[in-house]
Amino acid sequence: MTTTQLITQIKKKKSFLCIGLDVDLNKIPKHLLKEEDPIFAFNKAIIDATHHLCVAYKPNTAFYEAYGIKGWQSLEKTINYLNENHQDIYTIADAKRGDIGNTSTMYAKAFFEDLGFDSVTIAPYMGKDSVEPFLAFKDKHTILLALTSNQGAFDFQTKMVDGVELYKQVLETSKSWENSENLMYVVGATKAEFLGDIRKIIPDSFLLVPGVGAQGGNLQDVCKYGMNTNVGLLINSSRGIIYASNDEDFAEAAAKKAEELQLQMAVELGRN
Amino acid sequence: MTTTQLITQIKKKKSFLCIGLDVDLNKIPKHLLKEEDPIFAFNKAIIDATHHLCVAYKPNTAFYEAYGIKGWQSLEKTINYLNENHQDIYTIADAKRGDIGNTSTMYAKAFFEDLGFDSVTIAPYMGKDSVEPFLAFKDKHTILLALTSNQGAFDFQTKMVDGVELYKQVLETSKSWENSENLMYVVGATKAEFLGDIRKIIPDSFLLVPGVGAQGGNLQDVCKYGMNTNVGLLINSSRGIIYASNDEDFAEAAAKKAEELQLQMAVELGRN
Repeated sequence: MTTTQLITQIKKKKSFLCIGLDVDLNKIPKHLLKEEDPIFAFNKAIIDATHHLCVAYKPNTAFYEAYGIKGWQSLEKTINYLNENHQDIYTIADAKRGDIGNTSTMYAKAFFEDLGFDSVTIAPYMGKDSVEPFLAFKDKHTILLALTSNQGAFDFQTKMVDGVELYKQVLETSKSWENSENLMYVVGATKAEFLGDIRKIIPDSFLLVPGVGAQGGNLQDVCKYGMNTNVGLLINSSRGIIYASNDEDFAEAAAKKAEELQLQMAVELGRN
Repeated sequence: MTTTQLITQIKKKKSFLCIGLDVDLNKIPKHLLKEEDPIFAFNKAIIDATHHLCVAYKPNTAFYEAYGIKGWQSLEKTINYLNENHQDIYTIADAKRGDIGNTSTMYAKAFFEDLGFDSVTIAPYMGKDSVEPFLAFKDKHTILLALTSNQGAFDFQTKMVDGVELYKQVLETSKSWENSENLMYVVGATKAEFLGDIRKIIPDSFLLVPGVGAQGGNLQDVCKYGMNTNVGLLINSSRGIIYASNDEDFAEAAAKKAEELQLQMAVELGRN
């Protein structure tokens, strides 16, 4: 999916919600455990109940890898279900990969070609030649970690490098990489006060913003400081939506939570 | 495997060689492609021919993920083969993972419990709470990227942060994390001249050193600046060994290349 198509979807659905499919077998409703593939059964029900309220889904690969080959099968079924039934949905593999050039190419093939995701999250520590192999894929996005939502973000990301914070160096430096128009960036909702500065460096880029809800980030603050003329935001909620109930009504409960966020987003889009 | 057991193996085998199992179906001998699982068949032959010459194997997960579920099956078969037949071998999942706390715990379970690796490589960008979930596993090692072997290392890792290079900040900061005795570090062989400074910060830690061979790093330089009284080095070679021949004699050719390195290592250990 291109950036233009994503913006069209956001305007059509009045939503820039991304739902994180971080499925933990200990947290899903007990009655699903008797299904042949409980993770996929859970994802399918969540997708069926929420796809009209969001523009993107983001499975975090850790939650699938933790279940070995069965987990990868669930991930593959989930992305195939989305690509076959909801071509208007943007898909993000939250994988936080990154390696030397020839190895990054293998990861890019895995997520963009083999699995067919629209985008993948990447860690910037190894620099240009670890990211450019992902950027080389046409009509795919590479979502670079800039300022993450966790406490550990203050260990290195906000440290001053040549008079400017490391995460700003990452933003600035990455703009010069080949095919940088395919970049998006991760900025945690818990760091909304940083968004003004971030928008000075990358006014036009899309931001993937995790941390609204369970991690304490505030939707209105994120929009106030982070929204641009093309919206430029994908706000992710995972646990706050998918675990709204762990009973038979889990999918409806998730839809209700997703709708609450979507309605707030419609208000913010009205201001835009 | 504990650090002490690893040192015992190094002294017994007179080798601190790690062989990278980065298997690309386009590069392995054609006759293996008719096997049911060509990647595992290749790995098994390489392991059978070289296990007496090395102390560790390091599959890079990218090369397995690129083949989807089949690739994960090959990875699982490879680690199971090692754990069942060569308990004296140290195993490294070169995965370069790292995420917020609860997600890192899922990755740690995937690699340490589900797959049963001795260690996993981790990117430091997200800081303390993204790494400590890995460190919490007893008798397992977390191998943190410090100074990588690629050109992109100069984009951020060597930038000055509060008067000291970022990779040195990573080394220094990580020493204060809980269970930091379970840390090892990645330092590229192509940056051997940095090893003297690195040893001032982490004199006792093991270093995983990729980049000897195909990437141009020099074994003697790495030993000169990086070896400590407990050896403290695992030197990795991937392509230089496993693709020494792409004919029927590939395993013997790999063993010959591995032996060349092992003999050089025995000389270096003699100096130690």
